[in-house]
Amino acid sequence: MATAESVGDGGSGAAWAGVAPEAARRLLVAAVDAFAERGYHATTTRDIAGRAGMSPAALYIHYKTKEELLHRISRLGHDRALDILRRAESGAGTSAERLAEVVRAFVHWHAEQHTTARVVQYELDSLAPEHRAEIVALRRQSDAVVRRILEDGVRDGEFDVSDIGGTTLAVLSLCIDVARWFNEEGSRSPDEVGDLYAGLVLRMVRAGA
Amino acid sequence: MATAESVGDGGSGAAWAGVAPEAARRLLVAAVDAFAERGYHATTTRDIAGRAGMSPAALYIHYKTKEELLHRISRLGHDRALDILRRAESGAGTSAERLAEVVRAFVHWHAEQHTTARVVQYELDSLAPEHRAEIVALRRQSDAVVRRILEDGVRDGEFDVSDIGGTTLAVLSLCIDVARWFNEEGSRSPDEVGDLYAGLVLRMVRAGA
Repeated sequence: MATAESVGDGGSGAAWAGVAPEAARRLLVAAVDAFAERGYHATTTRDIAGRAGMSPAALYIHYKTKEELLHRISRLGHDRALDILRRAESGAGTSAERLAEVVRAFVHWHAEQHTTARVVQYELDSLAPEHRAEIVALRRQSDAVVRRILEDGVRDGEFDVSDIGGTTLAVLSLCIDVARWFNEEGSRSPDEVGDLYAGLVLRMVRAGA
Repeated sequence: MATAESVGDGGSGAAWAGVAPEAARRLLVAAVDAFAERGYHATTTRDIAGRAGMSPAALYIHYKTKEELLHRISRLGHDRALDILRRAESGAGTSAERLAEVVRAFVHWHAEQHTTARVVQYELDSLAPEHRAEIVALRRQSDAVVRRILEDGVRDGEFDVSDIGGTTLAVLSLCIDVARWFNEEGSRSPDEVGDLYAGLVLRMVRAGA
């Protein structure tokens, strides 16, 4: 367990803190690392059990299929991301301040949890159709948070944005791609990337221009 | 062959037009589709040969290993992307015009060739170390194109950018992530996304502000 928590993206263990029992949590952490390293289709439940120091039989007590593990990871990851966005949205302040906070928080999550985020983003099509639909619905809610702030800012005259849908897409895309390129050995911390990107996004919407 | 050209990202066949003989080209197209669908590690050379309508023995005439196929795809993809960037960079016009053209061209490539781009981006760590190093060097050259234009624009007073390295990273990241979310059934064409993004990037650098 100490091992599972100390590998990966320096916190992938902590991200699943709410998952109980502990064996189920340990298997999720192992699955994230296995999927990230070899891809979903090349990973077997035996690989995952082995990484968690458990037998395949012990795995099946908690998860019936490999897809159930991916779904659980994706669901928890998306719930957490949406929660972070909504919390940032509900803060006090102008539309510009809330947009900056949303970008900072979303970038921070994608930087710090980049291994999980990569699995969640790149293996979306590996989910069963009904699970994929559920996750897509959650993603629409995340999109809606950014869209609402852009609409507020435009209505109040704080922002100058003609294509709100396209700009929403670009803002989210910029944040999500942090998971692809971020690495802990790089020169920028998650907070520094968050500040940089918040500034760039405020420019995109011409806040205070 | 007609099949291989008509599937995938509506042009993945055309992208490899320079690859000869034709059987080698057909195998590359099949490998891109297989890697995109199942991931590199879950794909066998037998799968690739089968998709190309060939025997495993026929595959080995052209490629000794699966990694050689990935390397060839990645090399051709990166060569092409760099070529596109350099051509856009060398055009006439102000720094703002050249930056807009670079973004348009890079976005267009990532949208139109999104299946290839995904493989190339997400399977970077599946390359052999010496091949990975070669590709990383090509990527640095792409980064340098954007960085040079930003430096030109700042020097000439066209742009207002304090963190040139960070802004270069963000511009490229925004373009690359198009490969993740773009799909042909969406409401925006590659050219429309290119125009949208060129406008957003000019705002990021405060061109003409």
